[in-house]
Amino acid sequence: MRLSPLPPFIIDEAVRAALQEDLGLAGDITTNACIPADATSRAVIATRKPGVIAGLDLAAAAFRLIDPSIKVDIISHDGAHVEEGYVVLAMNGPSRGILSAERVALNFLGRLSGIATATAALVEAAKGTKAHIVCTRKTTPTLRVFEKYAVRCGGGHNHRFGLYDAVMIKDNHIAAAGGVAKALRVAKAAVGHMVKIEIEVDTAEALEEAIAEGADIILLDNMSIEELKRAVAFVAGRAVLEASGNVTLQTVRAIAETGVDIISSGWITHSAPTLDLGLDFE
Amino acid sequence: MRLSPLPPFIIDEAVRAALQEDLGLAGDITTNACIPADATSRAVIATRKPGVIAGLDLAAAAFRLIDPSIKVDIISHDGAHVEEGYVVLAMNGPSRGILSAERVALNFLGRLSGIATATAALVEAAKGTKAHIVCTRKTTPTLRVFEKYAVRCGGGHNHRFGLYDAVMIKDNHIAAAGGVAKALRVAKAAVGHMVKIEIEVDTAEALEEAIAEGADIILLDNMSIEELKRAVAFVAGRAVLEASGNVTLQTVRAIAETGVDIISSGWITHSAPTLDLGLDFE
Amino acid sequence: MRLSPLPPFIIDEAVRAALQEDLGLAGDITTNACIPADATSRAVIATRKPGVIAGLDLAAAAFRLIDPSIKVDIISHDGAHVEEGYVVLAMNGPSRGILSAERVALNFLGRLSGIATATAALVEAAKGTKAHIVCTRKTTPTLRVFEKYAVRCGGGHNHRFGLYDAVMIKDNHIAAAGGVAKALRVAKAAVGHMVKIEIEVDTAEALEEAIAEGADIILLDNMSIEELKRAVAFVAGRAVLEASGNVTLQTVRAIAETGVDIISSGWITHSAPTLDLGLDFE
Amino acid sequence: MRLSPLPPFIIDEAVRAALQEDLGLAGDITTNACIPADATSRAVIATRKPGVIAGLDLAAAAFRLIDPSIKVDIISHDGAHVEEGYVVLAMNGPSRGILSAERVALNFLGRLSGIATATAALVEAAKGTKAHIVCTRKTTPTLRVFEKYAVRCGGGHNHRFGLYDAVMIKDNHIAAAGGVAKALRVAKAAVGHMVKIEIEVDTAEALEEAIAEGADIILLDNMSIEELKRAVAFVAGRAVLEASGNVTLQTVRAIAETGVDIISSGWITHSAPTLDLGLDFE
Amino acid sequence: MRLSPLPPFIIDEAVRAALQEDLGLAGDITTNACIPADATSRAVIATRKPGVIAGLDLAAAAFRLIDPSIKVDIISHDGAHVEEGYVVLAMNGPSRGILSAERVALNFLGRLSGIATATAALVEAAKGTKAHIVCTRKTTPTLRVFEKYAVRCGGGHNHRFGLYDAVMIKDNHIAAAGGVAKALRVAKAAVGHMVKIEIEVDTAEALEEAIAEGADIILLDNMSIEELKRAVAFVAGRAVLEASGNVTLQTVRAIAETGVDIISSGWITHSAPTLDLGLDFE
Amino acid sequence: MRLSPLPPFIIDEAVRAALQEDLGLAGDITTNACIPADATSRAVIATRKPGVIAGLDLAAAAFRLIDPSIKVDIISHDGAHVEEGYVVLAMNGPSRGILSAERVALNFLGRLSGIATATAALVEAAKGTKAHIVCTRKTTPTLRVFEKYAVRCGGGHNHRFGLYDAVMIKDNHIAAAGGVAKALRVAKAAVGHMVKIEIEVDTAEALEEAIAEGADIILLDNMSIEELKRAVAFVAGRAVLEASGNVTLQTVRAIAETGVDIISSGWITHSAPTLDLGLDFE
Repeated sequence: MRLSPLPPFIIDEAVRAALQEDLGLAGDITTNACIPADATSRAVIATRKPGVIAGLDLAAAAFRLIDPSIKVDIISHDGAHVEEGYVVLAMNGPSRGILSAERVALNFLGRLSGIATATAALVEAAKGTKAHIVCTRKTTPTLRVFEKYAVRCGGGHNHRFGLYDAVMIKDNHIAAAGGVAKALRVAKAAVGHMVKIEIEVDTAEALEEAIAEGADIILLDNMSIEELKRAVAFVAGRAVLEASGNVTLQTVRAIAETGVDIISSGWITHSAPTLDLGLDFE
Repeated sequence: MRLSPLPPFIIDEAVRAALQEDLGLAGDITTNACIPADATSRAVIATRKPGVIAGLDLAAAAFRLIDPSIKVDIISHDGAHVEEGYVVLAMNGPSRGILSAERVALNFLGRLSGIATATAALVEAAKGTKAHIVCTRKTTPTLRVFEKYAVRCGGGHNHRFGLYDAVMIKDNHIAAAGGVAKALRVAKAAVGHMVKIEIEVDTAEALEEAIAEGADIILLDNMSIEELKRAVAFVAGRAVLEASGNVTLQTVRAIAETGVDIISSGWITHSAPTLDLGLDFE
Repeated sequence: MRLSPLPPFIIDEAVRAALQEDLGLAGDITTNACIPADATSRAVIATRKPGVIAGLDLAAAAFRLIDPSIKVDIISHDGAHVEEGYVVLAMNGPSRGILSAERVALNFLGRLSGIATATAALVEAAKGTKAHIVCTRKTTPTLRVFEKYAVRCGGGHNHRFGLYDAVMIKDNHIAAAGGVAKALRVAKAAVGHMVKIEIEVDTAEALEEAIAEGADIILLDNMSIEELKRAVAFVAGRAVLEASGNVTLQTVRAIAETGVDIISSGWITHSAPTLDLGLDFE
Repeated sequence: MRLSPLPPFIIDEAVRAALQEDLGLAGDITTNACIPADATSRAVIATRKPGVIAGLDLAAAAFRLIDPSIKVDIISHDGAHVEEGYVVLAMNGPSRGILSAERVALNFLGRLSGIATATAALVEAAKGTKAHIVCTRKTTPTLRVFEKYAVRCGGGHNHRFGLYDAVMIKDNHIAAAGGVAKALRVAKAAVGHMVKIEIEVDTAEALEEAIAEGADIILLDNMSIEELKRAVAFVAGRAVLEASGNVTLQTVRAIAETGVDIISSGWITHSAPTLDLGLDFE
Repeated sequence: MRLSPLPPFIIDEAVRAALQEDLGLAGDITTNACIPADATSRAVIATRKPGVIAGLDLAAAAFRLIDPSIKVDIISHDGAHVEEGYVVLAMNGPSRGILSAERVALNFLGRLSGIATATAALVEAAKGTKAHIVCTRKTTPTLRVFEKYAVRCGGGHNHRFGLYDAVMIKDNHIAAAGGVAKALRVAKAAVGHMVKIEIEVDTAEALEEAIAEGADIILLDNMSIEELKRAVAFVAGRAVLEASGNVTLQTVRAIAETGVDIISSGWITHSAPTLDLGLDFE
Repeated sequence: MRLSPLPPFIIDEAVRAALQEDLGLAGDITTNACIPADATSRAVIATRKPGVIAGLDLAAAAFRLIDPSIKVDIISHDGAHVEEGYVVLAMNGPSRGILSAERVALNFLGRLSGIATATAALVEAAKGTKAHIVCTRKTTPTLRVFEKYAVRCGGGHNHRFGLYDAVMIKDNHIAAAGGVAKALRVAKAAVGHMVKIEIEVDTAEALEEAIAEGADIILLDNMSIEELKRAVAFVAGRAVLEASGNVTLQTVRAIAETGVDIISSGWITHSAPTLDLGLDFE
């Protein structure tokens, strides 16, 4: 898979906001007191644990934005699987800027690499099946675009970006609309021809109805392995099937082997531990 | 401890940004298609696991901002230790707004309650000692103020908010300044009389020098239990002592029992798993 | 079709920006000089020409935001087909605010109603066929969400909202990717399962290739009526067919009668004349 | 007339906002999938119809902001009257950036050139008379500064920029103030010595009163050609005279020949059709 | 003179920004620690010195924005000349909010009242002459609109608001344009009919030339009283005359008595001392 | 004292906002009319009075932001004590940009240098004592960071930056908390270990209580010289002592000689007259 880049402006806006949060109005008072303005250093960011890298452009931007005279070399690349102790970024330039941007760079890089690493673990576990691992909307508020990118770095795919770019009909929608068929019909009538429609089903009857009405994707939530297998057999390629619920490193392979197309996981974004990385002066 | 509230504007700005991220320009196309504009519901948010609650005002704001006619009742309170299945928030009003704001409300509440729950576990483990559990600057970019608040909800305390509000002299600063004593002197000369000064030491000599120069707080990073005990005995109350490094649920009690004043943990903010909460219609 | 509302915040942000553009820093110096602060009036906005109304919430917001004590009654509704002289909005309250907000209210209402009126004319011309009239991305920079809404008010449908929510493969993409089939394959591999894929074709061979690769929608650009008919016959429902190019009030019926599903028009957004409306004091 | 440039920041802010509207958070998913990151192209923007060009700096900014490595050559100039097929802008650089910025560049350029073209038609029709063609405040919300600039590109002049920079006393103001003379007096007393004052009159008596009170400009709204001539004769240069209402390509010459100084038209901004321009790869 | 109000949004935006500057992310940590959330108080703001009041709406907004449940009574009014010890604002409500907003309220009120007081002193000194006291562009960056309003509160008038709303031709412009007459001609040709033109002259010949070319206003900079008198006599009402330079409380009367129309002072905005006001709990 | 620089982004944001305030939407209409686009000049900014310079980076930014092709040389440095007629900044480049940015550059430079000059006068008066001159929160709304920087340029020190970075317990807080000791205890319990605590006392008993509870700093407000001396003797170095109230050029030396550590003055920020500087073309 070719990694689609983040659109322009997004990185600088987010990193600038993070730097301002950390620097406040007085700035880095420790560094300004202790380090001469003309001191220069070389420093590197390296992994302290093995993992998958994501967010190098954000980390690099932290140094570049705080002081454009810092030369930043991206030594690894987003999506790289690296060992402990691997150098991913090198900075040369004013020591003050390197120290003042360190924490923001590491906070972005650690969080996104943590998500990529968690995603890659699920992807690895499902390897050889046709199932794609995808993320959900259970992301950190206002950082979703970066977290979805990190999922792609880990070999995963993205579900919809928000409430606006695809239809996902859940139980409450079905109830309000008056059933699976009616919900699919009002949705098709309301949205443009460029919008895909997914619907959640929890019974065989609902599944049949959804197929009959031409749902593009069908969500099978919290089904047992046996139920998933039956659904795959019944649908036989007439719609994309997505499994969700209780997806863990332990369960994902069995789910993938049922033949579903998509396995979605909230855990890879909402609970992935940070990847430990550190900055060292040389 | 009395919980200091978040300053005004902060909550609405963050929640509005999160809603806009989720709604985009087309809005919640599924809900608008399936749910009549005049349908109303009652729904509650309840825990799916036991934990400590943080972020109820943010969750409530998600519903209020998307539709001011939704009546939101805060049933629990931030800082509450609750069991699985405990209702913390109840919403009455237009079904569309409740559904469209659901994910943003849960994303804030789950993340912040996750941090509060992790913090409370460390606090519980250190109970009976004088040690305070504090967070670090290893927070989610641009959400630090909320995560520091969540730490307080969990019974923890806050370290400095950023690079601007206190001095923290680390190894690179000491090296550049020419030693512990010199670093403390330039820092004192540079900052106002309202700013506290902390310095990291890793030897007994450095500790002595820091005490002699009147450091307010001394950071003992990655020291063994024995080293910590010796430092506590040597300092004998002449400075606040902070231990950091390798702080886990398993190690925290032993660290606390050395007599240090402060134990700082990055894990409670950068790697705490989300607290599982869900929204149910009634 | 049920009109999907605009998401929250959008209206107030746009109208506030427009008011600030008109008021600058000195404000409405004429009205403040000539009209006493306590003078009140009743005024109405009425059509000067027949047309289809769109943007009443924006017009109402102009008065509400400039002075919350102005009572605004929305008398018509978005999507209404009205005659000349029809009152659509009534304002009661401080005369100053009514006068100061008048132009902003009319500028939004006239432009959006102009788009709705133009759209409705195309929709009317294609009536009885299955073809949907849809807009393009040829919209006013930063006002696209409102113009797409106005198209829906006029009975039209929306194409994708931007470059981000659906794939549209055009000639340059096909050339770079190495042909229709290859372009469709790389697109499918790159985007998530929630994203629809449209491709432009200009030969019968390309059309066949697109069908074979499972394109969701096929764009037939600038084809003759005969070519369109042949394409409809060949495709026979295996994909959604969209016609574009040279769509006018004169040509739209013939295009629609070819059996295409979608007819897209840039003219309804980039060149629709304003609908003439005026404000009168009573 | 020497074209006064747009103030700094304005262009980049507007174009960046338009690019963000089009790119959303996922970016140009089609181009990123189909076009290699290292592909480069040369493309040009050329007219598809004859017209007057306006907005080249905005179009150029779209390419520059999306990718600074795109080299943009402005081949024509704002205010140029060009034939169909005339190349106005050339881009060399990464193909992805050129494709992703294409629509934003064309949307600005088409709209502003449409306004310049409409203005130039009125200016041409009034050629040889002393009448200036000016625009009104009937502009696209938040884009007024660009549309007023486009009017100047078409050979027109600008009326006031908003409610803040000049006084324009209309019928409702006169009624509230208690007559023409009183309205002029309160306005003069209220505004500084740097502000011009215009008043609308609809009778010979009102005109006399306005002249007597020293109005700087007098608006003659919806008057017949005969009435305009009488007003010009009566005023005899003692004030600037502005005609408005029913200004079309058919009527403008007769109005101009009455001897009025200023003819204002809302049509050139609120209803000018876009100028058709297209981008072609070479 | 009737005080023209500030346009909407302006006050809330400025006061919110000032509150955020003072509260930061941690908020008012002293008040939150010491004052119970449910404590309520009554407090008043009163003058500590006599002066002219300006900015009551901004001061009131500070309390209202920090906590809408604080009831604020505006007891005086902008433009009021009050003695020492005069109560101008009274607040009833939560003590926390009153204390946290106190400094922002006083900072706005003190600064603006200081400007109004300084202006009023010049106005008083020139009383009985026809000269208007006006401010310049020598204002606090980003607060100009409020400082110009304060000048009006003190009985002064406003010069242009910025570089955009009137022409002011100074020596460098004249030199570049090739003389007074040429500069006036290019300016007239460049700007619309709604824009006034002022030119600076420093010789009798230049003055004559400016009158001949129909300048609206003529700036007489740093002229002696005798020179001013000669200029007034020569111009004899054919243009507005503005005196500037060395305007102090001591000199202003003599300048005013020369018969000039306008006297402009930078001192009233750039160097007026704050008016001392204080907040007292009752 | 080494001058700690302003954090990144801050300068450009403030200067850009000031330029936009001055340029509005139409820009510098005088300069654009009179000065050819290709004219270039050399100009300098020089003092018209002796003083201490502060804000050169902001003044330079005004020229750089309005036109990056203007070459700006900073000839003096912030903190320099200079005579009348001293050149501090030189600009080479397009005349239009130099003229259009002149006022913004001078407004920042004059205000900040005025504050630095006032501060330096107090510092000079207290020379030879150990007392530091510090500023208060009585600063211009939204410009505090720059004014605090100007105080440092004048040789002064900074008090807390806002309500968020240190505790300052005043009379109302003490009353609400139930006394000096209780207030100190609740404050200590509420804030982190990185926050200093100051308390205001006005009696000997309160002073004793504050010392006993370990206040970091004690504010002695409006005390007589004798009272200050007694407090200094009593405290004997156990806390930092700050004097405030009635601090003028006349009184400051006597206050400093009492032995207090800190003397705070609101006057240096809220009422310092601007330093007169001017721009001259060469």
